[in-house]
Amino acid sequence: MIRAMARQTDDPGDGMASRLIDVAELAAGVAAGDRRSLARAITLVESGRADHRTQALDLLARLRAPGDALRGQDAAGRQALRLGLSGTPGVGKSTFIESFGLMLTGQGKRVAVLAVDPSSARSGGSILGDKTRMEQLSRDPNAFIRPSPSQAQMGGVARRSREAVALCEAAGFDLVLIETVGVGQSETVVAEICDLFLLLLAPAGGDELQGVKRGIMEMADLILVNKADGDLKPAALRTMADYAGALRLLRRRPQDPEGFPKAMPVSALAADGLAAAWQEMQALATWRKAHGHWQSRRAAQARHWFEEEVRHGLLAVLAQDPARSRLNDLGKAVEAGQLTPEAAATEMLRSLG
Amino acid sequence: MIRAMARQTDDPGDGMASRLIDVAELAAGVAAGDRRSLARAITLVESGRADHRTQALDLLARLRAPGDALRGQDAAGRQALRLGLSGTPGVGKSTFIESFGLMLTGQGKRVAVLAVDPSSARSGGSILGDKTRMEQLSRDPNAFIRPSPSQAQMGGVARRSREAVALCEAAGFDLVLIETVGVGQSETVVAEICDLFLLLLAPAGGDELQGVKRGIMEMADLILVNKADGDLKPAALRTMADYAGALRLLRRRPQDPEGFPKAMPVSALAADGLAAAWQEMQALATWRKAHGHWQSRRAAQARHWFEEEVRHGLLAVLAQDPARSRLNDLGKAVEAGQLTPEAAATEMLRSLG
Repeated sequence: MIRAMARQTDDPGDGMASRLIDVAELAAGVAAGDRRSLARAITLVESGRADHRTQALDLLARLRAPGDALRGQDAAGRQALRLGLSGTPGVGKSTFIESFGLMLTGQGKRVAVLAVDPSSARSGGSILGDKTRMEQLSRDPNAFIRPSPSQAQMGGVARRSREAVALCEAAGFDLVLIETVGVGQSETVVAEICDLFLLLLAPAGGDELQGVKRGIMEMADLILVNKADGDLKPAALRTMADYAGALRLLRRRPQDPEGFPKAMPVSALAADGLAAAWQEMQALATWRKAHGHWQSRRAAQARHWFEEEVRHGLLAVLAQDPARSRLNDLGKAVEAGQLTPEAAATEMLRSLG
Repeated sequence: MIRAMARQTDDPGDGMASRLIDVAELAAGVAAGDRRSLARAITLVESGRADHRTQALDLLARLRAPGDALRGQDAAGRQALRLGLSGTPGVGKSTFIESFGLMLTGQGKRVAVLAVDPSSARSGGSILGDKTRMEQLSRDPNAFIRPSPSQAQMGGVARRSREAVALCEAAGFDLVLIETVGVGQSETVVAEICDLFLLLLAPAGGDELQGVKRGIMEMADLILVNKADGDLKPAALRTMADYAGALRLLRRRPQDPEGFPKAMPVSALAADGLAAAWQEMQALATWRKAHGHWQSRRAAQARHWFEEEVRHGLLAVLAQDPARSRLNDLGKAVEAGQLTPEAAATEMLRSLG
């Protein structure tokens, strides 16, 4: 089955084109929690083809319909905990996801892992591309791991990731973990999708730089300093204290109870501190639900994505020639100081009629 | 003259409508550095009227034309140091601007002070609204102080502020200080306008929260801890050390030489540390110019504003009825979970034709 998924993922367009899609059947499969259907459904929302887009919208609408349309499965009311996870390469994200995911599946929870990776288009690489990074979890029947698609562009990444999360939720997963890498823009996307945002760091010695982009600290609900084991434990605890201090200097947000955002030590390798971190996540989730922040965040996110889709639709004209070439030519003239931004914009808008 | 300026500012539409605008004369006045012309020119770019907009674009284009069009003044090549300044209320921004501005005018420099204040529309108040806050500087012939306009909306604020900065630059000011208050969005606007970004803080005791929004620290080139005088001096030095520590934990940006961003103590009241801070700003500016970062930042800013103007022009349809009401109705349905973001967006785009 994993091989079949991999083939679809590598070549979503062809894999999809070669057979007729029965959207009703696909929706029922997703609602029944079938992982193969889920993989196909994600491939469908990832497709850039116009006919696939129509089918994807149909699929998403069906999954929000009352249960009798889905062979008795009521997928509409299902909510997963959507967990964003960011961390620069080398901090041990894969090991963390493997250990953390196995802890949760061991408790009978169903865990989906997705990746938001805008860099894969350029680098050719792909986070989560190699499932051997999470060998045990990828074989776990209660887990679903989805590598990031190649050829991603940022606007598309946002839409696709959001819809993939909705599909995992409709498939009845309890937790959807959305992994990203610390490049700023992708974190903003993840923050607009997830309920809680985790930042994973590695221990640093003394004044050593951590490579944390400043805006990312703002999003974190929980900072986990990994590798708090063996020789690195003292450094991890010191790093944790440094970040705890830095967090105290920042303003408390209305959606946080006393003591949050919080910094904690974990060891993904030794599976140490993961239960404590999970407890904090649950405590934060419970508090936010009790105080209405959970619901209002989801409502605000939904509205944000609606408005983004509308803006995206209106601005789509700029992404296509001849408008695209014209925008680029005028932009270069502005950079070179040959035209003012205002004059160039007036010219551009005039050319769009 | 100050009274005349104030009248125009309070009621820009009427003040402008009651007389015929000679754009050529206004451009020549600005290029000659006449403060009254500059005030009128800023009022013109702030106006929302369509005919004023056309004249404003004409004015800006003339100021970029070769000198003979402006009675011998060549305003096109003039560059000021554009300095962004942010700080929450109470940190002593006015006192800092007064002391810092007077130090620079005392060295023969011409200093303009503008405000970006998106909150004034809601609060009814206005930063810089009360010129008595900078009594000496506002009487200084080498200074120009412009209160923030009332009735500001964020998109408009960005355009107006950027154009006001361009006008001050064309009027031959050496330094344009753009003041804002720490609410996040306005800092982002200021960061896209200024060459250097200063964050002014007050001393805090121990673990006391500072109210600094996290994203704002990311923008700072220099953090100045004010009130480093009298009883507060030890607390100011401690706060400075805390922030210096926090800055070291963050990633070094390519546009920064070793040691930047930097935290320093100042006393605006005692005019202490201001010369040292100015020296650091100049050192940073010189380094960035020598390494091409200054020029590339300005080029990127110009392109950013060009693209923003184009996007703004395309999206303007959403701000007007009937599209506006429709967007709001659909947005509420999405928040309430009655429509998916995708379905609502499809409906919205269809209604726009």
